[in-house]
Amino acid sequence: MTRIRFHQELEDLKHRILEMAGMAEQAIDLAVQAYTQRDLALCRRVLANESAINRAEREVDEFAVDLLAMQQPMAVDLRFILAVIKINADLERVGDQAVNIAQRVMNMISHPVFDLPVDIPAMAGRVRAMVRDALKSFIEGDTELARHVLEADDEIDRLNHEAFSALSTTMQTKPDCAVQALDALSIARNLERVADHATNIAEDVIFWVRGADVRHGAGQTTAGI
Amino acid sequence: MTRIRFHQELEDLKHRILEMAGMAEQAIDLAVQAYTQRDLALCRRVLANESAINRAEREVDEFAVDLLAMQQPMAVDLRFILAVIKINADLERVGDQAVNIAQRVMNMISHPVFDLPVDIPAMAGRVRAMVRDALKSFIEGDTELARHVLEADDEIDRLNHEAFSALSTTMQTKPDCAVQALDALSIARNLERVADHATNIAEDVIFWVRGADVRHGAGQTTAGI
Repeated sequence: MTRIRFHQELEDLKHRILEMAGMAEQAIDLAVQAYTQRDLALCRRVLANESAINRAEREVDEFAVDLLAMQQPMAVDLRFILAVIKINADLERVGDQAVNIAQRVMNMISHPVFDLPVDIPAMAGRVRAMVRDALKSFIEGDTELARHVLEADDEIDRLNHEAFSALSTTMQTKPDCAVQALDALSIARNLERVADHATNIAEDVIFWVRGADVRHGAGQTTAGI
Repeated sequence: MTRIRFHQELEDLKHRILEMAGMAEQAIDLAVQAYTQRDLALCRRVLANESAINRAEREVDEFAVDLLAMQQPMAVDLRFILAVIKINADLERVGDQAVNIAQRVMNMISHPVFDLPVDIPAMAGRVRAMVRDALKSFIEGDTELARHVLEADDEIDRLNHEAFSALSTTMQTKPDCAVQALDALSIARNLERVADHATNIAEDVIFWVRGADVRHGAGQTTAGI
């Protein structure tokens, strides 16, 4: 494989992982829309799309491994391909979270509407922004933006704790709507996990671009270098 | 690097990932023991150990990437190193789940004891067996054992659903112990996530040994080959 050909293959890999990202993002959007509109058909669409996301993950993974096997990529390309393999796994799990949310929504729809003390669409909006920024940081190799994603995760954790606190009070004081409150609590937690995956993606971008592993706070010591 | 030297490095990598596995397994054991004994000191130990697990993850990752960069490993070695990178990430997240469990136990200890309709130690025993088997399948390159782990995951999902159902009934009928029920429900879910990580590890072992990606049910079609 020539060097030019190899770079075309890398571009192709990038294109494929972005397609995979589009599928995962759409799954979350549909699941949250299903929640807002209490729409059973949208839930079913999320469930139906899962196998396509799983298939896309396998294809990206195989393509990346083939690239590693056929070429002997140098450090920065190697790290790029490894980042794609990791990002790919996170995107597939984002798809899993969309399925979890859709299943909860299906359960909620089967119960009466109840006004719950949690703003799921607002939380989803912030989580979606994290995913978008994580992917943008990947496309543009922008470690500053990736660092913003890491910071945004703290805010999501805070929102999730608030939701937990408010909804567990609801469960105690209004046992009649405990099931719906529990579903909403699960959805908040699923969104928090999506934010965790966005964080993982941002860490992989920094790993790729800087060639330095900034995970688990080690970044604070190397950020200024 | 000579071929013999390279194989020593691979052995070293295997040794390091097993050390990492030992730390993650111990974290789960301590967290479950903390639950059974309502032991605040054990909870604090789990929290204190987290940074060591995170550090070990980084070191394994860097070692694996260096091996890929310095050598041009052929297919089976390449897949082994990629499997280690993936297993490493899963083990670090097992450690995160141990922390989540310990935090829940800390909250439970601050409330009165209440007999809840869930057998956390029994569920933990099954999950621990899955983790052990997943790692054993890795050490021995045993894809049969890895497949057993994939099957065992369905049982854990069932137990988690049972726990969810029983504990949400408790929340509705006995609001006084809703907080403890919610903590127990979270712990059951954290254990289910540990089982998911064991499943991921088993899939990575199959990917490495068979050189075929069996994720998401594709294995059913290639298992007989």
